[in-house]
Amino acid sequence: MSVAKEVEAANSRYAASFTKGDLPLPPARKVAIIACMDARLDTARALGLEEGDAHVIRNAGGRATDALRSIVISQQLLGTREIIIVHHTDCGMLTFTDDAIRTKVRTDLHQNVDHIAFLPFGDVKQSVLDDVKFLADSPLVLDVPITGYIYEVETGKIVKVE
Amino acid sequence: MSVAKEVEAANSRYAASFTKGDLPLPPARKVAIIACMDARLDTARALGLEEGDAHVIRNAGGRATDALRSIVISQQLLGTREIIIVHHTDCGMLTFTDDAIRTKVRTDLHQNVDHIAFLPFGDVKQSVLDDVKFLADSPLVLDVPITGYIYEVETGKIVKVE
Repeated sequence: MSVAKEVEAANSRYAASFTKGDLPLPPARKVAIIACMDARLDTARALGLEEGDAHVIRNAGGRATDALRSIVISQQLLGTREIIIVHHTDCGMLTFTDDAIRTKVRTDLHQNVDHIAFLPFGDVKQSVLDDVKFLADSPLVLDVPITGYIYEVETGKIVKVE
Repeated sequence: MSVAKEVEAANSRYAASFTKGDLPLPPARKVAIIACMDARLDTARALGLEEGDAHVIRNAGGRATDALRSIVISQQLLGTREIIIVHHTDCGMLTFTDDAIRTKVRTDLHQNVDHIAFLPFGDVKQSVLDDVKFLADSPLVLDVPITGYIYEVETGKIVKVE
Protein backbone atom coordinates (compact mmCIF):
# COMPACT_ATOMS: atom_id res chain seq x y z
CA MET A 1 0.00 0.00 0.00
CA SER A 2 1.27 3.46 -0.84
CA VAL A 3 1.93 5.85 2.01
CA ALA A 4 -0.68 8.13 0.40
CA LYS A 5 -3.39 5.52 1.11
CA GLU A 6 -2.18 5.13 4.69
CA VAL A 7 -2.19 8.92 5.12
CA GLU A 8 -5.79 9.06 3.84
CA ALA A 9 -6.85 6.50 6.44
CA ALA A 10 -5.04 8.31 9.24
CA ASN A 11 -6.58 11.61 8.18
CA SER A 12 -10.08 10.13 8.31
CA ARG A 13 -9.49 9.38 11.99
CA TYR A 14 -8.06 12.88 12.60
CA ALA A 15 -10.98 14.60 10.86
CA ALA A 16 -13.56 12.50 12.74
CA SER A 17 -12.69 14.27 15.99
CA PHE A 18 -11.64 17.62 14.50
CA THR A 19 -12.89 20.64 16.46
CA LYS A 20 -10.64 23.46 15.19
CA GLY A 21 -12.48 24.55 12.06
CA ASP A 22 -12.74 28.22 12.94
CA LEU A 23 -9.10 29.19 13.52
CA PRO A 24 -7.99 32.46 11.90
CA LEU A 25 -5.37 32.53 9.12
CA PRO A 26 -2.68 34.56 10.97
CA PRO A 27 -0.70 32.51 13.52
CA ALA A 28 -2.05 33.10 17.06
CA ARG A 29 1.40 33.14 18.68
CA LYS A 30 2.86 35.41 15.96
CA VAL A 31 5.92 33.20 15.47
CA ALA A 32 7.55 31.52 12.49
CA ILE A 33 9.56 28.34 13.08
CA ILE A 34 12.32 27.39 10.63
CA ALA A 35 13.33 23.75 11.11
CA CYS A 36 14.98 20.88 9.31
CA MET A 37 12.80 18.45 7.33
CA ASP A 38 14.32 15.56 9.33
CA ALA A 39 11.83 12.76 9.98
CA ARG A 40 12.75 12.46 13.66
CA LEU A 41 11.74 16.03 14.48
CA ASP A 42 8.01 16.51 15.13
CA THR A 43 7.97 20.28 15.44
CA ALA A 44 4.47 20.45 16.95
CA ARG A 45 5.01 17.85 19.67
CA ALA A 46 8.62 18.77 20.44
CA LEU A 47 7.94 22.51 20.66
CA GLY A 48 4.42 22.47 22.11
CA LEU A 49 2.58 23.91 19.12
CA GLU A 50 -1.14 23.50 18.61
CA GLU A 51 -3.06 23.99 15.38
CA GLY A 52 -3.22 27.74 14.69
CA ASP A 53 -0.15 28.70 16.71
CA ALA A 54 2.81 29.15 14.35
CA HIS A 55 4.05 29.15 10.81
CA VAL A 56 6.27 26.12 10.30
CA ILE A 57 8.84 26.38 7.53
CA ARG A 58 10.93 23.25 6.96
CA ASN A 59 13.63 22.34 4.46
CA ALA A 60 16.78 20.24 4.23
CA GLY A 61 18.90 21.55 7.11
CA GLY A 62 16.40 24.16 8.26
CA ARG A 63 18.37 26.75 6.33
CA ALA A 64 17.28 30.37 6.68
CA THR A 65 18.44 31.41 3.23
CA ASP A 66 16.06 28.88 1.70
CA ALA A 67 13.24 30.14 3.96
CA LEU A 68 13.51 33.84 3.08
CA ARG A 69 10.54 33.94 0.66
CA SER A 70 8.33 32.33 3.29
CA ILE A 71 9.60 34.58 6.11
CA VAL A 72 8.85 37.73 4.12
CA ILE A 73 5.30 36.49 3.45
CA SER A 74 4.90 35.45 7.10
CA GLN A 75 5.96 38.86 8.43
CA GLN A 76 4.61 41.20 5.77
CA LEU A 77 1.23 39.57 5.17
CA LEU A 78 0.48 37.45 8.24
CA GLY A 79 1.91 39.40 11.15
CA THR A 80 4.53 37.09 12.72
CA ARG A 81 6.98 38.97 14.94
CA GLU A 82 9.39 36.31 16.23
CA ILE A 83 11.55 33.65 14.56
CA ILE A 84 12.79 30.35 16.02
CA ILE A 85 15.40 28.30 14.14
CA VAL A 86 15.85 24.57 14.88
CA HIS A 87 18.72 22.50 13.46
CA HIS A 88 19.59 19.13 15.01
CA THR A 89 22.22 16.55 15.85
CA ASP A 90 23.00 13.75 13.36
CA CYS A 91 21.76 15.91 10.48
CA GLY A 92 22.08 14.58 6.94
CA MET A 93 23.52 17.97 5.95
CA LEU A 94 26.67 17.07 7.90
CA THR A 95 27.31 14.07 5.64
CA PHE A 96 27.96 15.51 2.19
CA THR A 97 29.32 18.42 0.19
CA ASP A 98 27.98 20.34 -2.79
CA ASP A 99 30.63 18.62 -4.93
CA ALA A 100 29.52 15.18 -3.77
CA ILE A 101 25.80 15.59 -4.45
CA ARG A 102 26.41 17.39 -7.74
CA THR A 103 28.62 14.49 -8.87
CA LYS A 104 25.98 11.95 -7.77
CA VAL A 105 23.22 13.73 -9.67
CA ARG A 106 25.44 14.05 -12.74
CA THR A 107 26.30 10.34 -12.59
CA ASP A 108 22.92 8.88 -11.62
CA LEU A 109 20.47 11.30 -13.26
CA HIS A 110 22.71 12.69 -16.01
CA GLN A 111 21.80 16.21 -14.95
CA ASN A 112 23.96 19.24 -14.21
CA VAL A 113 22.97 20.82 -10.88
CA ASP A 114 26.00 23.06 -10.46
CA HIS A 115 23.51 25.96 -10.22
CA ILE A 116 21.91 24.57 -7.04
CA ALA A 117 23.52 25.38 -3.68
CA PHE A 118 22.48 22.43 -1.52
CA LEU A 119 23.52 24.27 1.70
CA PRO A 120 25.28 21.45 3.60
CA PHE A 121 27.29 22.33 6.69
CA GLY A 122 30.13 20.89 8.75
CA ASP A 123 29.13 22.09 12.22
CA VAL A 124 25.55 22.28 13.45
CA LYS A 125 26.20 24.97 16.06
CA GLN A 126 27.83 27.17 13.42
CA SER A 127 24.97 26.57 10.98
CA VAL A 128 22.50 27.86 13.59
CA LEU A 129 24.67 30.91 14.31
CA ASP A 130 25.05 31.56 10.57
CA ASP A 131 21.30 31.36 10.00
CA VAL A 132 20.41 33.60 12.95
CA LYS A 133 22.92 36.16 11.66
CA PHE A 134 21.66 35.89 8.08
CA LEU A 135 18.12 36.79 9.17
CA ALA A 136 19.23 39.43 11.67
CA ASP A 137 21.30 41.15 8.97
CA SER A 138 18.76 40.84 6.16
CA PRO A 139 17.07 44.11 5.19
CA LEU A 140 14.05 42.01 4.17
CA VAL A 141 13.49 40.73 7.71
CA LEU A 142 11.96 42.85 10.47
CA ASP A 143 13.89 43.59 13.67
CA VAL A 144 12.31 40.81 15.74
CA PRO A 145 13.59 38.29 18.31
CA ILE A 146 15.41 35.41 16.59
CA THR A 147 16.41 32.40 18.70
CA GLY A 148 18.39 29.38 17.49
CA TYR A 149 18.36 25.85 18.89
CA ILE A 150 19.90 22.46 18.29
CA TYR A 151 17.40 19.63 18.69
CA GLU A 152 19.03 16.50 20.06
CA VAL A 153 17.53 13.52 18.22
CA GLU A 154 18.98 11.30 20.94
CA THR A 155 17.20 12.98 23.87
CA GLY A 156 14.30 15.00 22.41
CA LYS A 157 15.76 18.15 23.98
CA ILE A 158 16.36 21.52 22.36
CA VAL A 159 19.54 23.34 23.37
CA LYS A 160 19.76 27.08 22.82
CA VAL A 161 22.69 28.25 20.71
CA GLU A 162 24.31 31.46 21.95
CA MET B 1 7.26 36.18 27.65
CA SER B 2 8.78 35.37 24.27
CA VAL B 3 7.46 32.35 22.41
CA ALA B 4 11.02 30.98 22.58
CA LYS B 5 10.76 30.73 26.39
CA GLU B 6 7.38 29.03 26.11
CA VAL B 7 8.81 26.60 23.53
CA GLU B 8 11.67 25.77 25.90
CA ALA B 9 9.20 24.94 28.68
CA ALA B 10 7.05 22.80 26.37
CA ASN B 11 10.14 20.99 25.10
CA SER B 12 11.21 20.12 28.65
CA ARG B 13 7.93 18.28 29.08
CA TYR B 14 8.31 16.53 25.70
CA ALA B 15 11.88 15.45 26.45
CA ALA B 16 10.93 14.16 29.91
CA SER B 17 8.96 11.30 28.38
CA PHE B 18 11.00 10.92 25.17
CA THR B 19 11.64 7.30 24.16
CA LYS B 20 12.63 7.60 20.49
CA GLY B 21 16.35 8.33 20.77
CA ASP B 22 17.52 5.54 18.49
CA LEU B 23 15.61 6.23 15.28
CA PRO B 24 17.68 6.02 12.07
CA LEU B 25 18.34 9.08 9.91
CA PRO B 26 16.50 7.89 6.73
CA PRO B 27 12.69 8.18 6.96
CA ALA B 28 11.13 4.81 7.84
CA ARG B 29 8.17 5.22 5.48
CA LYS B 30 10.38 6.49 2.62
CA VAL B 31 8.12 9.46 1.91
CA ALA B 32 8.63 13.21 1.61
CA ILE B 33 5.71 15.50 2.43
CA ILE B 34 5.59 18.98 0.87
CA ALA B 35 3.06 21.17 2.71
CA CYS B 36 2.17 24.78 3.34
CA MET B 37 3.65 26.52 6.41
CA ASP B 38 0.10 27.45 7.49
CA ALA B 39 -0.33 27.45 11.26
CA ARG B 40 -3.60 25.52 11.13
CA LEU B 41 -2.04 22.46 9.48
CA ASP B 42 -0.32 20.05 11.88
CA THR B 43 1.19 17.68 9.34
CA ALA B 44 2.02 14.96 11.87
CA ARG B 45 -1.40 14.80 13.52
CA ALA B 46 -3.44 15.39 10.36
CA LEU B 47 -1.54 12.81 8.29
CA GLY B 48 -0.75 10.24 10.99
CA LEU B 49 3.03 10.67 11.04
CA GLU B 50 5.17 9.54 13.95
CA GLU B 51 8.73 10.62 14.69
CA GLY B 52 11.02 8.93 12.17
CA ASP B 53 8.39 8.38 9.48
CA ALA B 54 8.72 11.10 6.83
CA HIS B 55 10.62 14.11 5.61
CA VAL B 56 8.43 17.17 6.08
CA ILE B 57 9.18 20.12 3.80
CA ARG B 58 7.07 23.22 4.41
CA ASN B 59 7.03 26.69 2.88
CA ALA B 60 4.58 29.45 2.02
CA GLY B 61 2.01 27.69 -0.15
CA GLY B 62 3.68 24.29 -0.03
CA ARG B 63 5.20 25.07 -3.41
CA ALA B 64 7.16 22.28 -5.09
CA THR B 65 9.51 24.61 -6.97
CA ASP B 66 10.70 26.01 -3.64
CA ALA B 67 11.15 22.46 -2.29
CA LEU B 68 13.31 21.11 -5.11
CA ARG B 69 16.66 21.36 -3.27
CA SER B 70 15.20 19.46 -0.33
CA ILE B 71 13.53 16.82 -2.53
CA VAL B 72 16.80 16.07 -4.37
CA ILE B 73 18.59 15.61 -1.01
CA SER B 74 15.68 13.50 0.31
CA GLN B 75 15.73 11.16 -2.67
CA GLN B 76 19.40 11.06 -3.55
CA LEU B 77 20.89 10.84 -0.06
CA LEU B 78 18.11 9.59 2.21
CA GLY B 79 16.15 7.15 0.10
CA THR B 80 12.61 8.54 -0.04
CA ARG B 81 10.56 7.08 -2.88
CA GLU B 82 7.18 8.77 -2.66
CA ILE B 83 6.01 12.40 -2.54
CA ILE B 84 2.82 13.82 -1.02
CA ILE B 85 1.85 17.46 -1.64
CA VAL B 86 -0.61 19.25 0.67
CA HIS B 87 -2.04 22.69 -0.10
CA HIS B 88 -5.13 23.93 1.74
CA THR B 89 -8.31 26.00 1.71
CA ASP B 90 -8.20 29.64 2.86
CA CYS B 91 -4.49 29.85 2.01
CA GLY B 92 -2.72 33.18 2.37
CA MET B 93 -1.22 32.61 -1.08
CA LEU B 94 -4.71 33.21 -2.56
CA THR B 95 -4.77 36.75 -1.14
CA PHE B 96 -1.99 38.62 -2.92
CA THR B 97 0.05 38.99 -6.09
CA ASP B 98 3.77 39.34 -6.72
CA ASP B 99 3.13 42.97 -7.63
CA ALA B 100 1.32 43.63 -4.35
CA ILE B 101 3.94 42.17 -2.02
CA ARG B 102 6.81 43.71 -4.00
CA THR B 103 5.15 47.11 -3.69
CA LYS B 104 4.59 46.59 0.06
CA VAL B 105 8.23 45.64 0.65
CA ARG B 106 9.40 48.59 -1.44
CA THR B 107 7.15 50.97 0.52
CA ASP B 108 7.58 49.58 4.03
CA LEU B 109 11.15 48.25 3.98
CA HIS B 110 12.58 50.38 1.17
CA GLN B 111 13.89 47.24 -0.51
CA ASN B 112 13.59 46.01 -4.08
CA VAL B 113 12.45 42.37 -4.17
CA ASP B 114 11.57 42.18 -7.84
CA HIS B 115 14.03 39.26 -8.04
CA ILE B 116 11.95 37.12 -5.65
CA ALA B 117 9.06 35.08 -7.06
CA PHE B 118 6.70 34.78 -4.10
CA LEU B 119 4.67 32.02 -5.82
CA PRO B 120 1.11 33.09 -4.97
CA PHE B 121 -1.77 31.36 -6.74
CA GLY B 122 -5.40 32.05 -7.60
CA ASP B 123 -6.82 28.52 -7.40
CA VAL B 124 -5.74 25.94 -4.85
CA LYS B 125 -6.74 22.91 -6.93
CA GLN B 126 -4.70 24.24 -9.86
CA SER B 127 -1.70 24.95 -7.62
CA VAL B 128 -1.69 21.31 -6.49
CA LEU B 129 -1.97 20.09 -10.09
CA ASP B 130 0.82 22.46 -11.15
CA ASP B 131 3.12 21.27 -8.38
CA VAL B 132 2.48 17.55 -9.01
CA LYS B 133 3.26 18.14 -12.70
CA PHE B 134 6.37 20.19 -11.93
CA LEU B 135 7.86 17.34 -9.92
CA ALA B 136 6.68 14.62 -12.30
CA ASP B 137 8.30 16.45 -15.22
CA SER B 138 11.53 17.42 -13.43
CA PRO B 139 14.60 15.48 -14.57
CA LEU B 140 15.97 15.97 -11.03
CA VAL B 141 13.13 14.02 -9.44
CA LEU B 142 12.92 10.22 -9.55
CA ASP B 143 9.94 8.49 -11.16
CA VAL B 144 8.02 7.89 -7.90
CA PRO B 145 4.35 8.13 -6.86
CA ILE B 146 3.31 11.76 -6.34
CA THR B 147 -0.09 12.46 -4.79
CA GLY B 148 -1.63 15.89 -4.25
CA TYR B 149 -4.22 16.90 -1.66
CA ILE B 150 -6.15 19.93 -0.48
CA TYR B 151 -6.40 20.10 3.32
CA GLU B 152 -9.67 21.65 4.43
CA VAL B 153 -8.91 23.92 7.39
CA GLU B 154 -12.66 23.97 8.12
CA THR B 155 -13.03 20.18 8.51
CA GLY B 156 -9.55 18.73 9.06
CA LYS B 157 -10.02 16.53 5.98
CA ILE B 158 -7.64 16.03 3.07
CA VAL B 159 -9.21 15.76 -0.36
CA LYS B 160 -7.23 14.13 -3.15
CA VAL B 161 -6.74 16.27 -6.26
CA GLU B 162 -7.03 14.36 -9.54
